[in-house]
Amino acid sequence: MSYFRPAIDALTAYQPGEQPAAGEQVVKLNTNENPYPPSPGALAALQSVAADSLRRYPQPAADEFRASAAAVLGIDATWIVAGNGSDDLLTMLFRSVADAERPVAFPAPTYSLYRTLARMQGAPAVEVPFDDTYALPVERLAAAAAALTIVASPNSPSGNRIPNADLDELAARVSGILVIDEAYAAFATGDALELTARRENVVVLRTLSKSHSLAGLRLGFAVAPPALLSGLLKVKDSYNVDAVSARVGAAAIRDTAHTVANVERVCASRERLSAALADIGCRVWPSEANFLLVRPPDGDARNVYERLKAEGILIRYFDEPMLADRMRITVGTPAQNERLLAALRQLVSPAVESGRTPNDQ
Amino acid sequence: MSYFRPAIDALTAYQPGEQPAAGEQVVKLNTNENPYPPSPGALAALQSVAADSLRRYPQPAADEFRASAAAVLGIDATWIVAGNGSDDLLTMLFRSVADAERPVAFPAPTYSLYRTLARMQGAPAVEVPFDDTYALPVERLAAAAAALTIVASPNSPSGNRIPNADLDELAARVSGILVIDEAYAAFATGDALELTARRENVVVLRTLSKSHSLAGLRLGFAVAPPALLSGLLKVKDSYNVDAVSARVGAAAIRDTAHTVANVERVCASRERLSAALADIGCRVWPSEANFLLVRPPDGDARNVYERLKAEGILIRYFDEPMLADRMRITVGTPAQNERLLAALRQLVSPAVESGRTPNDQ
Repeated sequence: MSYFRPAIDALTAYQPGEQPAAGEQVVKLNTNENPYPPSPGALAALQSVAADSLRRYPQPAADEFRASAAAVLGIDATWIVAGNGSDDLLTMLFRSVADAERPVAFPAPTYSLYRTLARMQGAPAVEVPFDDTYALPVERLAAAAAALTIVASPNSPSGNRIPNADLDELAARVSGILVIDEAYAAFATGDALELTARRENVVVLRTLSKSHSLAGLRLGFAVAPPALLSGLLKVKDSYNVDAVSARVGAAAIRDTAHTVANVERVCASRERLSAALADIGCRVWPSEANFLLVRPPDGDARNVYERLKAEGILIRYFDEPMLADRMRITVGTPAQNERLLAALRQLVSPAVESGRTPNDQ
Repeated sequence: MSYFRPAIDALTAYQPGEQPAAGEQVVKLNTNENPYPPSPGALAALQSVAADSLRRYPQPAADEFRASAAAVLGIDATWIVAGNGSDDLLTMLFRSVADAERPVAFPAPTYSLYRTLARMQGAPAVEVPFDDTYALPVERLAAAAAALTIVASPNSPSGNRIPNADLDELAARVSGILVIDEAYAAFATGDALELTARRENVVVLRTLSKSHSLAGLRLGFAVAPPALLSGLLKVKDSYNVDAVSARVGAAAIRDTAHTVANVERVCASRERLSAALADIGCRVWPSEANFLLVRPPDGDARNVYERLKAEGILIRYFDEPMLADRMRITVGTPAQNERLLAALRQLVSPAVESGRTPNDQ
């Protein structure tokens, strides 16, 4: 007999990317962290946290952060709910919306946490496959008639941004909530924030993990009409965002110049890395995120992942059918990208370098 | 039509105690914060957080904190799961154990979040009333045959510690999990940690909010046999504890001398405050926590709460039948306790001071 719900016994926990131990020297291109440091203002804010802020319970709604985010986005603070990372907001959405009678829908492949959260709720999950261009299957997602439909844009691991026209059409056609998970929006040519003002059923999720180099801080937020947020707030942990995160995050989001500068460096590196990967025969999907989806020439992505890992370079390989021949590579610093490329050049064309041809076998 | 689950529409969110705005001058005795600052080592740890710890995702299991907590408790780190406050661990327990077919049981009155979390899960909640001594109703709790039974010890708002013999008997008689919520155990004459070593179904929860003056940091942990924790881990957010909390919390829990010194000051103040309240005619329940449950002479606790609030002194009043004539008062610094007592002396015996007798009316 188990102590747990049958749905939990049947569940495999979400597997985050590998985290090297402290001090381990690796080129870490597997979990989409920003390669540049957070804002100096954020670091100063960390130093300025008062003992009394630690001693007392934090403001339940992370007021300082919420006000700063609202000012930067040009919206009212009542349209924002802060979370302990955007994963916390996803959890709130699933807990408040999805259950056995209220299914979830999303395109696949995407952020695999959506599937895990649906299973925890015992909610049916309709996974609509992307085609090889990763265009949004609007028709089939709408037909799923889910209580909760989720689209990551830019999507992970494909990297493509979903056009607002597609998202708007989907929002109009679903009867439930449409979540647009914009974890990577800062690296894209635009975002879907304006849909929240026009559609009462749209929630946009953001995180400071990648764009603001604060993955260690756990801070994300949801933007939606206050009426929609009221349901979310009912399942929010009273003090889900701690006093340090609220303060540091507020300083970070206000420093837009720092964020823009780092984002521009990452985007420029992304274009160079993409071109270099194509030069060595890889297929590279167009990306508006801080990572690239890449197919090595022979399609043996698992082998590339393992060989790179042996050389101290971590990339992400997803062991599932739709992604078996591809790998996701985070855009690093120019030096990291060069190390990756040097290692890849050795791996992907050994036949040429050793002078062998297919006839040799 | 609602966008949310019926259980959520029917739910009233948990109401935490009032948080005065920054800079507001109040005597805050309403949310059981420790009146003394956190460990200097914890503050130094905060200053020492590296930019790279913010930039990268944290260790998923908050390794540094877990190792420190394990060393202090003299147990193996695999017996510990860290959470974003112990509320996060309660959420994990409810999500992994409770549903419509798997009820929850707890004595009442207690921490009202248990009721809220049960409703979120759509789980029946068997609330077994305490008698006026707040002795644990073991028989009736066992008879509830719940999948998840929760006992706060010391209990809030009553303050009494539940004897280990009662907890052990309850653990033996329930077929599900017994959670012992020890948020206030540091202020008590003992704890129930040893039950986790003897009973495969016991989880003990701890928090650094009160004993370690770190309510603003959000850090708690569960202690249980690893086999039991495996279910919890499946619903844990991948990075539920941020890098700053893990580091600061590790330093705080290692500084046992600081914690013990502050706890001893609070306990000494508690005894003095308790005696002084009795002197002015209040009934005061015996407490092993950092707060007191108090009945004013006329039983009009709501009036006392409101009058004190008007004077800038916050205590906690719970607007529910079993607690209507009582109030919960956090033990503050000696100066805070004196201010409270001075105000209370004015409030509770105006008839005597104005020279009136009942015959005057």
